[in-house]
Formats: sequence, structure tokens, C-alpha cells
Amino acid sequence: MKNSIGPKPLLLTNPVLIVGSYDPSGKPNAMNAAWGGIANSNPPCVSVSLRKATYTHGNIMNRKAFTISIPSEKYVKEADYFGMKSGKDTDKFESARLTPVRSEKVDAPYVGEFPVVLECTLLHYLELGSHTHFIGEIVDIKVDEECINEAGLPDITKVLPFCFDLSSRSYYGIGKKLDKAFDPSVLQTFATGAR
Amino acid sequence: MKNSIGPKPLLLTNPVLIVGSYDPSGKPNAMNAAWGGIANSNPPCVSVSLRKATYTHGNIMNRKAFTISIPSEKYVKEADYFGMKSGKDTDKFESARLTPVRSEKVDAPYVGEFPVVLECTLLHYLELGSHTHFIGEIVDIKVDEECINEAGLPDITKVLPFCFDLSSRSYYGIGKKLDKAFDPSVLQTFATGAR
Repeated sequence: MKNSIGPKPLLLTNPVLIVGSYDPSGKPNAMNAAWGGIANSNPPCVSVSLRKATYTHGNIMNRKAFTISIPSEKYVKEADYFGMKSGKDTDKFESARLTPVRSEKVDAPYVGEFPVVLECTLLHYLELGSHTHFIGEIVDIKVDEECINEAGLPDITKVLPFCFDLSSRSYYGIGKKLDKAFDPSVLQTFATGAR
Repeated sequence: MKNSIGPKPLLLTNPVLIVGSYDPSGKPNAMNAAWGGIANSNPPCVSVSLRKATYTHGNIMNRKAFTISIPSEKYVKEADYFGMKSGKDTDKFESARLTPVRSEKVDAPYVGEFPVVLECTLLHYLELGSHTHFIGEIVDIKVDEECINEAGLPDITKVLPFCFDLSSRSYYGIGKKLDKAFDPSVLQTFATGAR
């Protein structure tokens, strides 16, 4: 039996995206955003939605660029901090004792201590109401050497990213591996009615 | 030391979104999509990106509506199956032994056995290259009674959603709770330099 709980922005597994940008004076800023996801494969794009009142919003509009740094579990408090203060009146990198690193490919800084970084240029934006929906083209990804697997891709068990859950207003780690995706045996299972 | 791994559609924690739609004959269909996320708070919106070649793409364009059913861990194989077959030549609900339920508020079916369902009307779409980026307004959410907490919201520890990791082409469960979000003590910690 399902109950209606009304319209809410609830998806349960939201990413924790630390969005890096420069302000007009060149001061690096970063904020925590959970409204976003991959938006396209080719060219690779990511979406992230921000309120107009955020300092980052104006920075992205001005510089047409941003980064997304993905924090590891051990930086959960720093990530939370980035979501509570505004860069208008604070140097959040300094307060959080984290290092702003100038991106190689776009006009935005990233968090040096976080293991995975997406460097993005602004491709589109769409006003949706409370938030502006930004689409960034991912022009490069940088990954800490020790988190890269044999295939040259980030290893989720080493990166240890985490999710934001709106219902409990909490951060949850990634758990155990459940199954391979695109598993051919699954096709057979359902085709033959074996399950 | 960070290495460049080039531009890729990688975010590590992608949701598993089972997108429900009706075809022109009224046959219910569902597909697995990992490119998406919350896009707006007010009105609540969700984004999901689909290739034009998918059967679901045309269905959403025709009916201007879709659902997103969020599977529990125990349905990981069914979720994977929904991502491998096309509804053009298969009744995927029947093959997966799952129940298509007509939404109350939008012209699309959802997966009865999955604990959380977002009922969405099509608000915008944007062509990004390989994928069309759909923005749906969430007009209602339905949750299995036994997964609703005291605050009337879905309890992630009962829903047991999971994530898709592109690097390992695998599904990962949600792990342990790391910390509360918006924690006032975090503000104090960083303000005083106690950390």
C-alpha cells in the first residue's frame, strides 16, 4: 500500500557536489550542492541547480565555468561546512583549511584535498523557479593517483564518495557492491522465466 | 598528485531511476536511467537524460509525462534488466514479473513493487548531443507505507535504494550514516579553528 506524500524534491540518493568558482576579485569559493547529476554522455555534461542568491551563482554566470569536487567520507564535515556559509563574507577554503587549486582547463578553482574533480564550462542554464539549472560540459576529470584503477578510472571503493539524504538531512556512505550492471545472465534469467 | 583522465560522464554516485511511460498503444514500459538528479526545489523538479533511440524517449514526448520508480536492493536484477531490453519488442513488466500501476496524477505507469515513485509531468527538454535532457515537475510522490518515517518522509534505511557506478559498471548499496547535514556544530568548529 502506497501513501501519497505530495510533491517534494526527493530522490533519496543525491550526490554531494562541491562547486568551485572564482568571484569577481579572483577569490576562490566553493559550495555544497545536492541537486545535480550526469546530463549527457557525448559531450559529457553534468547538471547542478543553484539558488540565485548563492555567491556561486553569480560567479558561474560571470566566468562561464565551474568545477565539481567530490569529497571522500573523511571530509564530510568540510563538505557540510561548504553548504552552510556564504562566500560573500567568508573565505571558506581558508576556514575549512582546504586548498583552492586553479583548474588547468577552466576558469575555476577546485578542492585540492578531494580525490575527484570535474572541470566544467557553462553550456546552458535554465530558470526553473527557486533554482537555476546549470548544464556544464565536463572538459576534463582529475583523479588522485592512488584512487585510479587499472582501467584508468576512479575506484569508488578508494574515492569513498557519499550521498545526501533530504528526508533525514544526513550524509550516507556508499555500501557494499550488490551486483554487476549490464549482466548478460540477467537477460537469460528473465527470458526463461527462471527467476 | 592528480592525474587527468579526460572528459567522461563520471560522477561516481549516480541514482538508479526506473522511468515509466506508456507507448502509443497504452502498453506500459520502464527503463533504467542513471543520468539524472533533482533539478529544482519549488516547484520540485527532477532531470533525467535519455537517448533518442530509446522507446521511452518517444513515449515521454507523446504523453508529456513519466514516472520514476526507485528500486530497493532486492530488485537489483530487475532494475538491471530494465536497462538491457527495449520496450519496442518486449513487455518488460511481464518478463520481470513486476506490476505496472497507472499513476493517479500523470499519464504514466509505475512499478508497483518498488517502494518510492515520483509522478512527473514534462516541463522542459534540452538536446545536449547523445541525450535529451528531460526536466519533469514532480506532481506527487508515493511511498510504501512501511517505508515512511514519523515525519511523513521516506526512510532511506527502509527503502534501501542503490547507486550505479560507471567505472566498475556495478550497483552499490547505501552504507552507514556518516553525519547529520546542516550541523550547527560544524560552523562553530571551523569558525574557531578547533579542527
